[in-house]
Amino acid sequence: MSNKIRWGVLGGGGDSLIGILHRVAASMFDAYQLTAAVFNPDVNVSRAFAEEIGIPTNRIYTDLEEMILEEQKLPKEKRIQVVSVLTPNFLHFPMAKRLLEAGFHVICEKPMTMTYAEALELEEVQALSNRLFALTHTYTGYPMVRQMKKMIAKGVIGAVQKVDAQYYQGWINPIIHDKEKRSTTWRLNPEKSGISCCMGDIGVHAYQMIEYVTGMEVESILADLNHLYEDNQMDIDGTVLLRFGDYTKGVLRASQIATGEENNFTVAVYGKKAALKWEQENPNYLYLLEEGQPLRVLKPGHDYNDALSLDGTKLPPGHPEGIFDAMGNIYKGMAKAVRGKEYDPAEFPTMRDGVRGMRFIEIAVSSHADGTVWKSL
Amino acid sequence: MSNKIRWGVLGGGGDSLIGILHRVAASMFDAYQLTAAVFNPDVNVSRAFAEEIGIPTNRIYTDLEEMILEEQKLPKEKRIQVVSVLTPNFLHFPMAKRLLEAGFHVICEKPMTMTYAEALELEEVQALSNRLFALTHTYTGYPMVRQMKKMIAKGVIGAVQKVDAQYYQGWINPIIHDKEKRSTTWRLNPEKSGISCCMGDIGVHAYQMIEYVTGMEVESILADLNHLYEDNQMDIDGTVLLRFGDYTKGVLRASQIATGEENNFTVAVYGKKAALKWEQENPNYLYLLEEGQPLRVLKPGHDYNDALSLDGTKLPPGHPEGIFDAMGNIYKGMAKAVRGKEYDPAEFPTMRDGVRGMRFIEIAVSSHADGTVWKSL
Amino acid sequence: MSNKIRWGVLGGGGDSLIGILHRVAASMFDAYQLTAAVFNPDVNVSRAFAEEIGIPTNRIYTDLEEMILEEQKLPKEKRIQVVSVLTPNFLHFPMAKRLLEAGFHVICEKPMTMTYAEALELEEVQALSNRLFALTHTYTGYPMVRQMKKMIAKGVIGAVQKVDAQYYQGWINPIIHDKEKRSTTWRLNPEKSGISCCMGDIGVHAYQMIEYVTGMEVESILADLNHLYEDNQMDIDGTVLLRFGDYTKGVLRASQIATGEENNFTVAVYGKKAALKWEQENPNYLYLLEEGQPLRVLKPGHDYNDALSLDGTKLPPGHPEGIFDAMGNIYKGMAKAVRGKEYDPAEFPTMRDGVRGMRFIEIAVSSHADGTVWKSL
Amino acid sequence: MSNKIRWGVLGGGGDSLIGILHRVAASMFDAYQLTAAVFNPDVNVSRAFAEEIGIPTNRIYTDLEEMILEEQKLPKEKRIQVVSVLTPNFLHFPMAKRLLEAGFHVICEKPMTMTYAEALELEEVQALSNRLFALTHTYTGYPMVRQMKKMIAKGVIGAVQKVDAQYYQGWINPIIHDKEKRSTTWRLNPEKSGISCCMGDIGVHAYQMIEYVTGMEVESILADLNHLYEDNQMDIDGTVLLRFGDYTKGVLRASQIATGEENNFTVAVYGKKAALKWEQENPNYLYLLEEGQPLRVLKPGHDYNDALSLDGTKLPPGHPEGIFDAMGNIYKGMAKAVRGKEYDPAEFPTMRDGVRGMRFIEIAVSSHADGTVWKSL
Repeated sequence: MSNKIRWGVLGGGGDSLIGILHRVAASMFDAYQLTAAVFNPDVNVSRAFAEEIGIPTNRIYTDLEEMILEEQKLPKEKRIQVVSVLTPNFLHFPMAKRLLEAGFHVICEKPMTMTYAEALELEEVQALSNRLFALTHTYTGYPMVRQMKKMIAKGVIGAVQKVDAQYYQGWINPIIHDKEKRSTTWRLNPEKSGISCCMGDIGVHAYQMIEYVTGMEVESILADLNHLYEDNQMDIDGTVLLRFGDYTKGVLRASQIATGEENNFTVAVYGKKAALKWEQENPNYLYLLEEGQPLRVLKPGHDYNDALSLDGTKLPPGHPEGIFDAMGNIYKGMAKAVRGKEYDPAEFPTMRDGVRGMRFIEIAVSSHADGTVWKSL
Repeated sequence: MSNKIRWGVLGGGGDSLIGILHRVAASMFDAYQLTAAVFNPDVNVSRAFAEEIGIPTNRIYTDLEEMILEEQKLPKEKRIQVVSVLTPNFLHFPMAKRLLEAGFHVICEKPMTMTYAEALELEEVQALSNRLFALTHTYTGYPMVRQMKKMIAKGVIGAVQKVDAQYYQGWINPIIHDKEKRSTTWRLNPEKSGISCCMGDIGVHAYQMIEYVTGMEVESILADLNHLYEDNQMDIDGTVLLRFGDYTKGVLRASQIATGEENNFTVAVYGKKAALKWEQENPNYLYLLEEGQPLRVLKPGHDYNDALSLDGTKLPPGHPEGIFDAMGNIYKGMAKAVRGKEYDPAEFPTMRDGVRGMRFIEIAVSSHADGTVWKSL
Repeated sequence: MSNKIRWGVLGGGGDSLIGILHRVAASMFDAYQLTAAVFNPDVNVSRAFAEEIGIPTNRIYTDLEEMILEEQKLPKEKRIQVVSVLTPNFLHFPMAKRLLEAGFHVICEKPMTMTYAEALELEEVQALSNRLFALTHTYTGYPMVRQMKKMIAKGVIGAVQKVDAQYYQGWINPIIHDKEKRSTTWRLNPEKSGISCCMGDIGVHAYQMIEYVTGMEVESILADLNHLYEDNQMDIDGTVLLRFGDYTKGVLRASQIATGEENNFTVAVYGKKAALKWEQENPNYLYLLEEGQPLRVLKPGHDYNDALSLDGTKLPPGHPEGIFDAMGNIYKGMAKAVRGKEYDPAEFPTMRDGVRGMRFIEIAVSSHADGTVWKSL
Repeated sequence: MSNKIRWGVLGGGGDSLIGILHRVAASMFDAYQLTAAVFNPDVNVSRAFAEEIGIPTNRIYTDLEEMILEEQKLPKEKRIQVVSVLTPNFLHFPMAKRLLEAGFHVICEKPMTMTYAEALELEEVQALSNRLFALTHTYTGYPMVRQMKKMIAKGVIGAVQKVDAQYYQGWINPIIHDKEKRSTTWRLNPEKSGISCCMGDIGVHAYQMIEYVTGMEVESILADLNHLYEDNQMDIDGTVLLRFGDYTKGVLRASQIATGEENNFTVAVYGKKAALKWEQENPNYLYLLEEGQPLRVLKPGHDYNDALSLDGTKLPPGHPEGIFDAMGNIYKGMAKAVRGKEYDPAEFPTMRDGVRGMRFIEIAVSSHADGTVWKSL
């Protein structure tokens, strides 16, 4: 009898990259057994995919309702424990809500909901459910991001006095500069994508990262967004000024028209005594800057790292880890929590991150719409 | 009924890093089902580990012989097809030999054998067996290494005129400088580790990489090795001069006393028209140098890459991949071969790489021992 | 009769770094002859310094007024033509104004004036004077900055759609966090430093760079500055949102509390077709990002560069412009030795190096010729 | 009366890069006065050049013999003290010898002589002369090379156990692959260039650097050189094994056929406790690797550097030494303008930049003061 966690999946079938990412992550520490799924709205497609990836088809369900119904009939020790929600964005909220209400732990892809109101509602549902909820802000799974958080918490850089995060991509260029394409893509359609494109998709990652590594909450923001074309309804670029207090400030820059950039996500935190910088495209390096000292470059797997950082490093120093490993660490943390083991709250993003994120998106859009003015978060 | 490949594993239980690496790699493209295993010489430990990682214990065997006997009793469509050999080095040869003779495909960790004579013997066994054999020179699984190979093959850099490979680590320092430790560690004991430490462990990776990316064979070598202490029997550092022909030369440098280096493995190939360089610690970059042109940096996942390179990239550009992904690509290639699908010979290292590697190690040691003289490979 | 430009200098005596910088710069292309100067308010100090640096003392003046009076008495072909203003900030405006009115060309250190009103006045004076005026925004002298400007002008990146500049330093930390120091330093005293510390000192460099490389003018800005302490009157950090038009935006970030940063000045310009990025701390690289193409890294001295860029490169590719400084240090060491001063033997290579080198070459050739054998040096 | 060193120069006239390099270097610390010269075998050309660069023509001589004769007639306090030899390679030895015998200090370009025998002879001459002699192995002038030397001397890395130097260029490719060119270029003609091309030109730099930074002497070497074509008499590539003792080894790699490489000169020294690495193309970084510690990157101008290193740094940290060149280009542009020559407006910032800058500062401050609101520039 396996003592793996029984795991269900909604969506993520076929060639879905997000599906592969979650399955590999779930396998990384031998903690999850893929046991039940609705990979596709068409149950035959779901079953065929189950066969293709070599899992039994007897718990491949027609839809979420059937999954809940049938699983609840099973004895507790056979029933799935955690369900990952990998469906299209607008389904995240209703599915996560239904799962929590039905007593399942949830791992949910980003964005958590379509609106801030939904996020608050979901938070309430979770509070009543006594179930766990992890939101896959994957980048927080990187060992050196965790190391950064712990070093800041330990006071290595002193009181934070400035924060600078950047998330630059260039992928939307071929769409945005084509009148036909920009008017038809679902990503620029508020009904399908929510109220924000750039801030909703990547700005929120940068925002969550800032709060994750600093352990501080942003108090108010002022956003200047760019739609680039008058007939485009969604922001595809923007700069957001951040205030953590009267004298602790920051800036968050996100763009999908930063031509040629791939996934150039960086975060820098400047403290009274030193600073730390991390770059997603070279995730195995953490830079420590201290006045009058040589620049120090920390890498994964060394004893000088915090236990939380080391916990997510599988190989000796010098063997680079990638995005799959980051997601694997999120799953690892959730597995500890599901099993009732001790874990560090920094091991996976939670409902709170989702709620804060949705609020950030809404306030960013309204700060801009009202004339680039300050608004409280 | 799963159509995954039925996979067996020898060794790699418990916290074994190599075990985790192979299991995750096998999961990456949903192609393998871990079905049978001897994780440990103690079958109870094996079974406990099987439970821990959630696989059925009914095909956990006492030893290799039992595994072969019992699996052969099963109908062909239930029998395991591929076995990974992850046991201590001295067992690689006898186990791989036995498996091939018994009709199983083999994935074998490095070093393939303890001696060149064994390597030749194993090659003969495979030739008679009609079975597949993959040797996990993992670094060849990186998308940008594959891209490098394909670009050289297509003539992008012109005729190769110079090759330079480096594999520098510093991990043996605390051992080598301690008289007690260096006389007792198994790594420096020729009976347990074969005739070479540095060349046998990492020099051979550099050597295989050189032949992999250039598609050329080294003709002769001259080796200058360093034991650092008179009472140390094994090389822990060395430089090997390479000749591919009268006017095509190269150099291979490997060290375990390059203090502070983690896994600094690089390869540079200079052609008549241009050059290509790759570094293992930043595996997602491939540098193209061409006289009078800007330096170009190629990255995974872009359309400008070869199909073989793209086949091993799972996520969009900008999401770094690591060593797990490289191993995953080796397993993917082997899966294609096992399934009788078309595959590129560059997808996984074979018996030939193992034979060449063992010869390289023996000749390197004898070139040095005979007074740093040239010897044919 | 020299045909060098007759050059005067105000300030920059003694160990003044800015004085050295201007003198070396003036010597680089053999175009200037330092002919007249007021190095110091004390004319005796000025004269002593003139002797120290080996220029005739007959045109070392008491003050600017004397300089103008005496020089104007000289025939035009003896009179100084250009004067560099290297005095404390508050003197830039009155001195530059006086010089222009008196018919001299001016090279002026930054900041040009203390206020915008003065700047406008000076502009008017110049317009009437028919004299030249150069402001030393030094970074625009870098070959790769000039290359960036020219590539944007030629349309290589298409219409500019986003600009991001950063100028981060951390030097003010030890001052700002010390109540005593921050209340007494002239840099944080508006009467001595003008109305802004961070924006006035470095933000303006970033701003000028943006307009220099893009060839565009910023239309409007929104600034969020940080004083860090209530009792500090001057900004020491800030983010400025930029608008070039309704849909072309940018951001300028400057800080003197970015702890551990030295002079981290970067500029990135994103166009419709491609992007260009440059970093002051690695000034010999210009990065060209184009969707679907390898990252290209342009370097100085190559034919692919614009004439303006090539005009400022004195050595072949691969020699960082810093090589002049390296040679300068060799000369410095030799000077100490010639003068019989104490010096470190490491300050310049000697005959012994030459002898060893020649032996190395001969032995290397004969080691190879005799069959790659060992030879003593 | 100037107290500068009276300096003579042989060669280096016209557009000679080496001439510019030495003149600028000589000017850097205000220590030399160019007083006498033979710039060219044709004295009229020499005189014209003297005028062009603005030095008196009365001590421009016909040849070295005249220079010596006439200078010796002058009283000692007027006579030149140091002479730099910048003539073609085969003249270095006879000229340096003659100068030392005649009582002048000498600064000599590389290679010092054509043969080892000449080098020994010159060494003897110097010993008798009581004169100083500097050989311009320029790279040892870099602050971080000097820092490296001092750290090794102080034992920071412990006993040296391995050395690796590389000097890779690709410039000879267009010559070597063209039968006509390779048979006619003086660089591949032993009569004009000495017995070695690659080792003689750049290998010797790497060799000198190794001995400079380690303070150790190489005892014996083994070289494998490459001529690439049978009809080519000179080495253009090679690897040299180095021995400092029985258990201290190294490798020196040099090439002029490393296609696409510019001036990729690196040196790494591995000690028992730590390692140091430096790269010529990024000369402002020195890497300190220590087992179990973060990588440390040292930069010029910091207090943690040795006095010798600091002595050669003129500006604060973060300003690459190349900044002098940037300023030099500003001055160059201004010189063109002053002389009424055609120039590019991009060659130096103007009044307009100053005006815009002052406006930027004022508006930035008022935008913030008025509540982070938009203002026009």
